[in-house]
Amino acid sequence: MTRFEVLILGNSSATPMYGRHPTAQIINYNEQLFLVDCGEGTQMQLFRYGIRSNKINHIFISHLHGDHYLGLVGLLSSQHLMGRQADLHLYGPAALKEILDLQFKHSDTRLRYALIFHPTNPEHEDLLLETPMLKVRSFPLRHRIACTGFRFDEGRRSATLKAEEVERLRIPTPYLKLLKKGIDYLGADGTVYPAKDLTFPAPASRSYAYCSDTVLTDAYFDAIREVDLLYHESTFLHEMVDRAKETFHTTALEAAQVAQIVQARKLLLGHFSARYKDLQPLLDESRAVFANTVLSEEGKWFLV
Amino acid sequence: MTRFEVLILGNSSATPMYGRHPTAQIINYNEQLFLVDCGEGTQMQLFRYGIRSNKINHIFISHLHGDHYLGLVGLLSSQHLMGRQADLHLYGPAALKEILDLQFKHSDTRLRYALIFHPTNPEHEDLLLETPMLKVRSFPLRHRIACTGFRFDEGRRSATLKAEEVERLRIPTPYLKLLKKGIDYLGADGTVYPAKDLTFPAPASRSYAYCSDTVLTDAYFDAIREVDLLYHESTFLHEMVDRAKETFHTTALEAAQVAQIVQARKLLLGHFSARYKDLQPLLDESRAVFANTVLSEEGKWFLV
Repeated sequence: MTRFEVLILGNSSATPMYGRHPTAQIINYNEQLFLVDCGEGTQMQLFRYGIRSNKINHIFISHLHGDHYLGLVGLLSSQHLMGRQADLHLYGPAALKEILDLQFKHSDTRLRYALIFHPTNPEHEDLLLETPMLKVRSFPLRHRIACTGFRFDEGRRSATLKAEEVERLRIPTPYLKLLKKGIDYLGADGTVYPAKDLTFPAPASRSYAYCSDTVLTDAYFDAIREVDLLYHESTFLHEMVDRAKETFHTTALEAAQVAQIVQARKLLLGHFSARYKDLQPLLDESRAVFANTVLSEEGKWFLV
Repeated sequence: MTRFEVLILGNSSATPMYGRHPTAQIINYNEQLFLVDCGEGTQMQLFRYGIRSNKINHIFISHLHGDHYLGLVGLLSSQHLMGRQADLHLYGPAALKEILDLQFKHSDTRLRYALIFHPTNPEHEDLLLETPMLKVRSFPLRHRIACTGFRFDEGRRSATLKAEEVERLRIPTPYLKLLKKGIDYLGADGTVYPAKDLTFPAPASRSYAYCSDTVLTDAYFDAIREVDLLYHESTFLHEMVDRAKETFHTTALEAAQVAQIVQARKLLLGHFSARYKDLQPLLDESRAVFANTVLSEEGKWFLV
């Protein structure tokens, strides 16, 4: 099966503590690497977990709070110093470009590779990237400053051939591709060999959504409906819901509620406040509402 | 003896590798903490080595290459989030203020504490800070962009009393301070009690100089003359001296030569290129010219 996994590089909210790092994650889809957010220290975390930064061709930044992007200039500079030549696509709030330009200007850095900037839309859902097998969209979240989430949708997957049947009937090779697409084979004698008899049905397409940071609102529910894996921030326990509202964050209980409403298959909690040394209470709180919850752990891969 | 030590938080040059971090160090003078440079990840390194960031009241930034300052916004933001109220003095190139202001603007951050910015002079030596017991100066280095080093000089130290002698002679308490300053005590009967007989001589004042990054030039030798501990960058082995010149860096051999010429007591090497996994050859090369060389190791305190 085509690889579709998420590696957590940082699970901390704004103040990094207890060896936890600010937000960053790698999406690996079929050995294409996507970086989502890039908190301070991301380049060191990538090194630590054996990810080759030069394999990343697309970087998505949700918003301009430091814990989500302060590692970016360092990562881009290191790519430059290590001789990167491939284009690098960067998606994020428009002002990010201004910040990078100012820092590159004062460090007298002229990148050796093309950094192609795509401003994200803080108001509307937007298709950012489309390849034959993957679509990436941004959608607005509601935070203290403009912030978007990201959704990764796998394209339609192929059926797989029933190898023995196909061989027995000696169906010519050029027709096998068509069969996988659901097109019946017509024999020279007029016999119809239905594709559905000669293939196993295509597995369902998988999807991943990333929500960080946001206050609870139904505004983004449509954008993340029925994803297989939902990463949702859960900065606080619900006993601190007032503080969550004030700071435009969500509680573990609210994250569970979102997962339940949008019918996610699995929920991945993250963006934990520095006040929690032990994260078990956050997990317990979420599981009481949405059983299939896991904690994002740094260095761990999660299947979509 | 009054504490005067340097803690290495990062010893890597631009590209962090092998668990090495970009440049940052803490100077502890008599439990006052000074941060010198603040590469990406410094706040995590401070946490790791048990340094309380809110004890730092002065931060010095040498120049605007990312590996020397990209951890600053994160550190300043975390201080804000953790409720800092004390003033924080920041010394660095004028453009640093512009970069911070832009980042704070876009993250909608209004610091709760006063951040007092002091632009450094890239052309001339400058006295940045003077307390009764410590002076900090900046001095120009020669790098690809404007860069300064920093020198920490301890004030004149007091002599210590020969307690038994002083007691035997029943010298009145108010005169003890004067004796320590070298002023003789005149007895009521006109007898002169020479201060030098009643005190141990004041230990020499100590000094520390920080040189990163720079190409070899005699322009800064006067500024670092006769320091007790000299931190000097040594990005490359001397076999790469051409590359060092090109990138405005120095080799381990050149660092040793500088230490020898300025008559430093001890040399601390740092800012190692990512090409060196093993640092022993850099140490060997320096020791061949200047025996009292040590490698800066992350997490280790060095006495001045």
